[in-house]
Amino acid sequence: MGKPDLRAILASNLKAHRERAHVSQDEFADLCGLHRTYIGSVERQERNVTLATLELLAQSIGCSVPELLTKGAIK
Amino acid sequence: MGKPDLRAILASNLKAHRERAHVSQDEFADLCGLHRTYIGSVERQERNVTLATLELLAQSIGCSVPELLTKGAIK
Repeated sequence: MGKPDLRAILASNLKAHRERAHVSQDEFADLCGLHRTYIGSVERQERNVTLATLELLAQSIGCSVPELLTKGAIK
Repeated sequence: MGKPDLRAILASNLKAHRERAHVSQDEFADLCGLHRTYIGSVERQERNVTLATLELLAQSIGCSVPELLTKGAIK
Protein backbone atom coordinates (compact mmCIF):
# COMPACT_ATOMS: atom_id res chain seq x y z
CA MET A 1 0.00 0.00 0.00
CA GLY A 2 1.08 3.60 -0.58
CA LYS A 3 1.02 6.38 1.94
CA PRO A 4 -1.87 5.70 4.30
CA ASP A 5 -4.98 7.88 4.03
CA LEU A 6 -4.69 8.94 7.64
CA ARG A 7 -1.36 10.61 7.02
CA ALA A 8 -2.95 12.66 4.24
CA ILE A 9 -5.95 13.63 6.38
CA LEU A 10 -3.73 14.63 9.30
CA ALA A 11 -1.48 16.69 7.01
CA SER A 12 -4.41 18.45 5.42
CA ASN A 13 -6.01 19.27 8.78
CA LEU A 14 -2.74 20.61 10.19
CA LYS A 15 -2.24 22.86 7.16
CA ALA A 16 -5.84 24.09 7.33
CA HIS A 17 -5.40 24.96 11.00
CA ARG A 18 -2.09 26.77 10.44
CA GLU A 19 -3.50 28.80 7.57
CA ARG A 20 -6.55 29.77 9.58
CA ALA A 21 -4.37 30.70 12.57
CA HIS A 22 -1.68 32.36 10.43
CA VAL A 23 1.18 30.44 12.02
CA SER A 24 4.23 28.95 10.29
CA GLN A 25 5.30 25.31 10.67
CA ASP A 26 8.12 26.47 12.98
CA GLU A 27 5.79 28.57 15.11
CA PHE A 28 3.25 25.77 15.40
CA ALA A 29 6.01 23.29 16.35
CA ASP A 30 7.05 25.70 19.13
CA LEU A 31 3.45 25.94 20.35
CA CYS A 32 3.27 22.13 20.54
CA GLY A 33 6.69 21.75 22.17
CA LEU A 34 7.91 19.73 19.18
CA HIS A 35 11.13 20.08 17.17
CA ARG A 36 10.91 22.92 14.64
CA THR A 37 11.23 20.61 11.64
CA TYR A 38 8.71 18.07 12.93
CA ILE A 39 5.49 19.70 11.67
CA GLY A 40 6.96 19.92 8.18
CA SER A 41 7.65 16.20 8.14
CA VAL A 42 4.10 15.43 9.32
CA GLU A 43 2.65 17.70 6.62
CA ARG A 44 4.83 15.87 4.05
CA GLN A 45 3.23 12.64 5.34
CA GLU A 46 6.61 11.23 6.30
CA ARG A 47 5.71 10.32 9.89
CA ASN A 48 3.95 7.40 11.45
CA VAL A 49 2.73 9.63 14.28
CA THR A 50 1.94 8.12 17.70
CA LEU A 51 -1.09 8.55 19.96
CA ALA A 52 0.91 10.80 22.32
CA THR A 53 1.87 13.15 19.48
CA LEU A 54 -1.70 13.17 18.15
CA GLU A 55 -2.88 14.32 21.59
CA LEU A 56 -0.25 17.07 21.65
CA LEU A 57 -1.25 18.30 18.18
CA ALA A 58 -4.99 18.20 18.95
CA GLN A 59 -4.50 20.09 22.24
CA SER A 60 -2.51 22.82 20.47
CA ILE A 61 -5.21 23.17 17.81
CA GLY A 62 -8.07 22.98 20.29
CA CYS A 63 -9.76 19.99 18.67
CA SER A 64 -10.17 16.30 19.53
CA VAL A 65 -7.96 13.54 18.12
CA PRO A 66 -10.93 11.99 16.25
CA GLU A 67 -11.52 15.40 14.62
CA LEU A 68 -7.84 15.71 13.75
CA LEU A 69 -8.12 12.37 11.87
CA THR A 70 -11.39 13.19 10.08
CA LYS A 71 -11.27 14.49 6.51
CA GLY A 72 -12.43 18.09 6.22
CA ALA A 73 -13.04 18.47 9.99
CA ILE A 74 -10.68 21.47 10.19
CA LYS A 75 -11.32 24.22 7.67
CA MET B 1 0.37 13.49 33.23
CA GLY B 2 -0.68 9.86 33.76
CA LYS B 3 -1.69 7.41 31.11
CA PRO B 4 -3.27 9.41 28.29
CA ASP B 5 -7.02 9.25 27.87
CA LEU B 6 -6.68 8.00 24.31
CA ARG B 7 -4.97 4.83 25.45
CA ALA B 8 -7.88 4.11 27.78
CA ILE B 9 -10.47 4.80 25.08
CA LEU B 10 -8.64 2.60 22.57
CA ALA B 11 -8.32 -0.22 25.12
CA SER B 12 -11.97 -0.04 26.03
CA ASN B 13 -13.12 -0.05 22.39
CA LEU B 14 -10.87 -3.02 21.55
CA LYS B 15 -12.24 -5.00 24.49
CA ALA B 16 -15.83 -4.10 23.60
CA HIS B 17 -15.26 -5.28 20.03
CA ARG B 18 -13.62 -8.53 21.10
CA GLU B 19 -16.40 -9.32 23.55
CA ARG B 20 -19.06 -8.61 20.95
CA ALA B 21 -17.23 -10.74 18.37
CA HIS B 22 -16.31 -13.47 20.87
CA VAL B 23 -12.62 -13.49 19.95
CA SER B 24 -9.66 -13.77 22.30
CA GLN B 25 -6.73 -11.33 22.32
CA ASP B 26 -4.61 -13.92 20.51
CA GLU B 27 -7.26 -14.57 17.87
CA PHE B 28 -7.78 -10.86 17.27
CA ALA B 29 -4.01 -10.32 16.97
CA ASP B 30 -3.93 -13.05 14.32
CA LEU B 31 -6.78 -11.37 12.44
CA CYS B 32 -4.84 -8.08 12.43
CA GLY B 33 -1.54 -9.70 11.49
CA LEU B 34 0.01 -8.50 14.76
CA HIS B 35 2.09 -10.42 17.30
CA ARG B 36 -0.09 -12.54 19.57
CA THR B 37 0.88 -10.61 22.71
CA TYR B 38 0.41 -7.19 21.12
CA ILE B 39 -3.35 -6.76 21.66
CA GLY B 40 -2.92 -7.56 25.35
CA SER B 41 -0.34 -4.80 25.72
CA VAL B 42 -2.64 -2.29 23.95
CA GLU B 43 -5.55 -3.29 26.21
CA ARG B 44 -3.26 -2.76 29.23
CA GLN B 45 -2.59 0.75 27.85
CA GLU B 46 1.12 0.05 27.62
CA ARG B 47 1.55 1.10 23.98
CA ASN B 48 1.97 4.44 22.29
CA VAL B 49 0.29 3.05 19.16
CA THR B 50 1.08 4.57 15.74
CA LEU B 51 -1.22 5.71 12.93
CA ALA B 52 -0.36 2.61 10.87
CA THR B 53 -1.36 0.27 13.70
CA LEU B 54 -4.55 2.26 14.34
CA GLU B 55 -5.50 1.74 10.68
CA LEU B 56 -4.81 -1.97 10.95
CA LEU B 57 -6.94 -2.30 14.11
CA ALA B 58 -9.81 -0.25 12.66
CA GLN B 59 -9.81 -2.27 9.43
CA SER B 60 -9.97 -5.54 11.38
CA ILE B 61 -12.87 -4.24 13.47
CA GLY B 62 -14.66 -2.68 10.51
CA CYS B 63 -14.75 0.83 11.96
CA SER B 64 -12.95 4.10 11.26
CA VAL B 65 -9.90 5.30 13.20
CA PRO B 66 -11.84 8.31 14.57
CA GLU B 67 -14.48 5.85 15.88
CA LEU B 68 -11.76 3.67 17.39
CA LEU B 69 -10.56 6.73 19.37
CA THR B 70 -14.02 7.89 20.47
CA LYS B 71 -15.29 6.95 23.94
CA GLY B 72 -18.20 4.53 23.77
CA ALA B 73 -18.22 4.35 19.97
CA ILE B 74 -17.88 0.56 20.04
CA LYS B 75 -20.35 -1.26 22.24
